[in-house]
Amino acid sequence: MTHFEQEIAALKETLLTMASKAGTAVNKAIKTLVDRDDDLARAVEEEDNALDQLEIEIDETAIGLLSKAPLASDLRLITVAMRISHDLERVGDEATTIARRSLELSQEPQLKPYIDIPRMARMGQDMLNDALDAFVHGNPEKARAVIPRDKEVDALNKQLHRELSSFMIEKPTTITRCLNLMVISKSLERIADHATNVAEEVVYLYEAKDIRHTGKGKES
Amino acid sequence: MTHFEQEIAALKETLLTMASKAGTAVNKAIKTLVDRDDDLARAVEEEDNALDQLEIEIDETAIGLLSKAPLASDLRLITVAMRISHDLERVGDEATTIARRSLELSQEPQLKPYIDIPRMARMGQDMLNDALDAFVHGNPEKARAVIPRDKEVDALNKQLHRELSSFMIEKPTTITRCLNLMVISKSLERIADHATNVAEEVVYLYEAKDIRHTGKGKES
Repeated sequence: MTHFEQEIAALKETLLTMASKAGTAVNKAIKTLVDRDDDLARAVEEEDNALDQLEIEIDETAIGLLSKAPLASDLRLITVAMRISHDLERVGDEATTIARRSLELSQEPQLKPYIDIPRMARMGQDMLNDALDAFVHGNPEKARAVIPRDKEVDALNKQLHRELSSFMIEKPTTITRCLNLMVISKSLERIADHATNVAEEVVYLYEAKDIRHTGKGKES
Repeated sequence: MTHFEQEIAALKETLLTMASKAGTAVNKAIKTLVDRDDDLARAVEEEDNALDQLEIEIDETAIGLLSKAPLASDLRLITVAMRISHDLERVGDEATTIARRSLELSQEPQLKPYIDIPRMARMGQDMLNDALDAFVHGNPEKARAVIPRDKEVDALNKQLHRELSSFMIEKPTTITRCLNLMVISKSLERIADHATNVAEEVVYLYEAKDIRHTGKGKES
């Protein structure tokens, strides 16, 4: 391996570390909600700093590498790494939002058992894992398969939004709790959006084809 | 001007076109809400495609230029242009969200006169304009001054969120409208976040100093 190749390998490695930390943050945030664990919520907030730092580290390394990149495919890899790290940093932000809202929710009795929320969280995380796996193994087909799954998470978010709206109307005393759950559901929907972005980046990286904004229905 | 310099100038020009379109989209989206103008709402949605395309165009040009960039400052400019275009594209997405929610709101009587929402919109747009002006004129001090203003928009969003929550509790028949207004307020808060990102990018560009994640209180 040349020195350049070693540096590229290290960049990929940092990205995978970041991905693993982002995944852990989402897991812990959902555990915070389900177990009503306030200490864990505070840990999620603190650990988010590590993701912020990793994003900056990746950007610095990437900019250093750009000037030495001999091939178009290297340039693509480096810019894709920067974008993926940005998405992972945002996943961490969403985990923090979930943890903060869970802290507020734990101050009142639980509204109902959480079923759809952990399910949405799992779907988003599976999407993220598959997109990253496609990145590591150079498998654009696997990345492509991630993209349509975003619609399922969108649908679950909309369904939950409707259920919570009706619930609020029937029982106005639950409004604050319903609003917090809506924010959490929206955060999970955004995590799936970030996973979709990563998948699109991976397709672009390996097929040199930009498929962003081509059919992904935007959330409103 | 060398050919490279001309290409860089064209990249900046495209970015400014994008900025102007993003600003127009936000203006129209707020006008949609205030004037209850459904046709305008649909126009905002359609025009968002132009922003999506410009983002892709900037990325392609930028990647082409990266391999020819002679100086570290060129690399910074090119990567910053890519990031700013991403933020502007997201501003367009938020404008679309506002327009869609306005369409829903125009189906019911207006809840109350809108005062804080147009004010938040103006604040976010002023921030965005100042950040872009700082970019064009190479003025990192002006960009720095944008960053603390994000807190004011955050505060307005929180205040509106509280007011709308109380309103819902008092009058459950207003819940759907209050939820739509909350989404719009949150979109405006995010537009200010994107303006802050642009300002941070401009500081980085001209001072070679990464100030992201250094004190910007994250929204939950």
